[in-house]
Amino acid sequence: MTGRTKITLDESELPRQWYNVIPDLPSPPPPPLHPGTLQPVGPEDLAPLFPMALIAQEVTADSYVPIPEEVLDVYRLWRPTPLYRAHRLERALNTPARIYYKYEGVSPAGSHKPNTAVPQAYYNAAEGTRRIATETGAGQWGSALAFSCAQFGLDCEIWMVRASYDQKPYRRTLMETWGATVHPSPSPETTAGAKVLADDPDSPGSLGIAISEAVEVAGGSADTRYALGSVLNHVLLHQTVIGEEAIKQFQAAGEEAGPDLIVGCTGGGSNFAGLVFPFLREKLAGRINPVFRAVEPAASPSFTRGRYAYDFGDTAGFTPLLKMHTLGHDFIPDPIHAGGLRYHGMSPLLSHAYELGLFEAVAKPQRECFAAGVTFARSEGIVPAPEPTHALAEVISEAKRCAETGEEKVILTALCGHGHFDMSAYQRYLSGEMDDFELPQDRIDAALTRLPALTR
Amino acid sequence: MTGRTKITLDESELPRQWYNVIPDLPSPPPPPLHPGTLQPVGPEDLAPLFPMALIAQEVTADSYVPIPEEVLDVYRLWRPTPLYRAHRLERALNTPARIYYKYEGVSPAGSHKPNTAVPQAYYNAAEGTRRIATETGAGQWGSALAFSCAQFGLDCEIWMVRASYDQKPYRRTLMETWGATVHPSPSPETTAGAKVLADDPDSPGSLGIAISEAVEVAGGSADTRYALGSVLNHVLLHQTVIGEEAIKQFQAAGEEAGPDLIVGCTGGGSNFAGLVFPFLREKLAGRINPVFRAVEPAASPSFTRGRYAYDFGDTAGFTPLLKMHTLGHDFIPDPIHAGGLRYHGMSPLLSHAYELGLFEAVAKPQRECFAAGVTFARSEGIVPAPEPTHALAEVISEAKRCAETGEEKVILTALCGHGHFDMSAYQRYLSGEMDDFELPQDRIDAALTRLPALTR
Repeated sequence: MTGRTKITLDESELPRQWYNVIPDLPSPPPPPLHPGTLQPVGPEDLAPLFPMALIAQEVTADSYVPIPEEVLDVYRLWRPTPLYRAHRLERALNTPARIYYKYEGVSPAGSHKPNTAVPQAYYNAAEGTRRIATETGAGQWGSALAFSCAQFGLDCEIWMVRASYDQKPYRRTLMETWGATVHPSPSPETTAGAKVLADDPDSPGSLGIAISEAVEVAGGSADTRYALGSVLNHVLLHQTVIGEEAIKQFQAAGEEAGPDLIVGCTGGGSNFAGLVFPFLREKLAGRINPVFRAVEPAASPSFTRGRYAYDFGDTAGFTPLLKMHTLGHDFIPDPIHAGGLRYHGMSPLLSHAYELGLFEAVAKPQRECFAAGVTFARSEGIVPAPEPTHALAEVISEAKRCAETGEEKVILTALCGHGHFDMSAYQRYLSGEMDDFELPQDRIDAALTRLPALTR
Repeated sequence: MTGRTKITLDESELPRQWYNVIPDLPSPPPPPLHPGTLQPVGPEDLAPLFPMALIAQEVTADSYVPIPEEVLDVYRLWRPTPLYRAHRLERALNTPARIYYKYEGVSPAGSHKPNTAVPQAYYNAAEGTRRIATETGAGQWGSALAFSCAQFGLDCEIWMVRASYDQKPYRRTLMETWGATVHPSPSPETTAGAKVLADDPDSPGSLGIAISEAVEVAGGSADTRYALGSVLNHVLLHQTVIGEEAIKQFQAAGEEAGPDLIVGCTGGGSNFAGLVFPFLREKLAGRINPVFRAVEPAASPSFTRGRYAYDFGDTAGFTPLLKMHTLGHDFIPDPIHAGGLRYHGMSPLLSHAYELGLFEAVAKPQRECFAAGVTFARSEGIVPAPEPTHALAEVISEAKRCAETGEEKVILTALCGHGHFDMSAYQRYLSGEMDDFELPQDRIDAALTRLPALTR
């Protein structure tokens, strides 16, 4: 084994500011619109849901936002995260490619999500919020927020998609260990939840429904605010610590030319953007020239088969209208094991960058992803969460192409979390019980007919 | 928050040799005896079970054993592990004590166990072993060996205590993800297992029974050997990388006087010995003067209520006789959630050191341990495995004493693993369903009447 296995940074090298890509783009992304007036939403529209500091970050024109000391103090519990050279995976694939992965699973919650949960909890606490309401699908985001609220003495109430609530009791216990309260969604406690239950008492729920419930609770209580784990500009901003560290680590690894290809999975987009945006800055400045590639589930393909249109972020239509790649706000994907990638929409900022041609996107069926996860686990040791197995499937395809062509491509991927709470999905895969799903075009078309009138 | 949160070392600072404490002790530990002849066992007795390199390490008189490059290459996947200053826990306890924890949960298997599983797999592969058989209780050791066997292309067969096999399907899936085969123990596939099943078809199993099964399988097949995750000298030897790193990290932290108190949990003893032995070397050389304290479950109290006597390491009596603190080889503890701490015996080397007065031992009931685990999770973020919550309970008691006395004691503890696969135990604790158990003296006395005749 030649060369280093993991490139670590001392905590003194933690990034001190988040990077905002918007000023560096050729044009800004279209603004969110108020669904009633169809005018851009202003701070006053968002104030019931978010603290002013986050609203300011959502629309800032500054290229850099300083990270508060109190946030850095919590980041230090696990950041900087390691960058790994995947020597063993390369050997297993017999590839001349040099594969690197940035591992975010070392956070207490086991994913990249605390990078934004911590500052969101901090700014809420600083502005007097007593309680944060949020939603979670498979539980990654809820875990991150529960951990972060414990750090700043906030109450945390989480609406968890019913199917996951029932199938993943251990994720729920994890959130409760950090002191959070977890409700199954749809729940009878909200108007939005009660309405869904009236139509279908056995509803398995969806991320869109759970968002509606948490937004309703936050909007109806003066000392409660809402937190979102992806999609929004300020969330992507917070995640840029990933890419900033990776740039330093590439230099420390002696890879001055940078990666040739950067691959990340996309659900709402925060993991991909967090790794990619700082490298995109370097590319736009002409210093490096990587290709960026997003990987999404074939069963929830917002980039590759969705429409770029204004749509709601939630099912009930409580959120502002967001211009994004969407499958329709009431689209419910097949029950694939893809955790947070099962969202109907996509970050408006990433959607805009995609329309500008700044990166590529591909979709992968789940069995190929889990096969990649097992190959990775048996070579590199870490058992990946279902989300990053999508990126790993693409990395492995690319590394195999390099094995054929002899190209010494430098590939970097975002290993955004571990799979310790996803073993039931691995069990299904290993026992041969996991299916791929065909997603017929008419199901997408039908959901898109229900887009808001503005864009239909 | 003043001072550093985590003290990391670059992988170039990985220890290059394991430390053998035996030459530094005032006297050597009593040897293992052959149960038939009552003579010390020789290499030829152990050869069916272990590769010669490990047998040599079991009895070496050298103070240091070089770590093979192939082992270092795998260690680099997660070592050196971080040393943390527990700023947030200190604040939560309002204590003047300075608390440090060495965190081994960053390994792929999530505990300190791969420190010995990797070299055991390596030496077996180097000597032509095709398959390793082992036992696992809660699954920490089985996971570590499954991961390690995948690294060296060995088959891995694991006998898992039935109660855990049924209650912890995700641990089993983790081992299977790394390619291992997992059997519930007692199993009908071995004579030892079949005998237990004939007496009690619903036997929940025990670590002692599972050891009997794995030893039987290894002894009966020329290309199969056995591996043990604790207790033996070579296992403790491999774990000393923990303490060697911690010594460097204490210097890097500016704590030149070293810790005043080092606390670790003990089941078979490898975690405690791994952290303590290098510090014990420094203490015996007069350079530092820490107190060492082992913490065991009140329901499985081999140090504090067992007898120091020759006994079998397993239930069926297949192993050599080991002079150790034992509750009797057929002692089955109450169903506490203490993972690998539920073993009837103790490392002979640690037992000897305890008899020499080199460290203290205390026992803790499980609810106090889980309360400590929750306090730790809500302050430091990491959710600890049940095993290290025993040490944390003692650390918290000690830190509270310091809060009363004002003493700025420097405390170091071994956080030997995370609790991601132990959430059912946290669920029981949080819901108020967890009981402490009284262990009546007559139950211990009864088990001790069945010690081998030699020592009864």
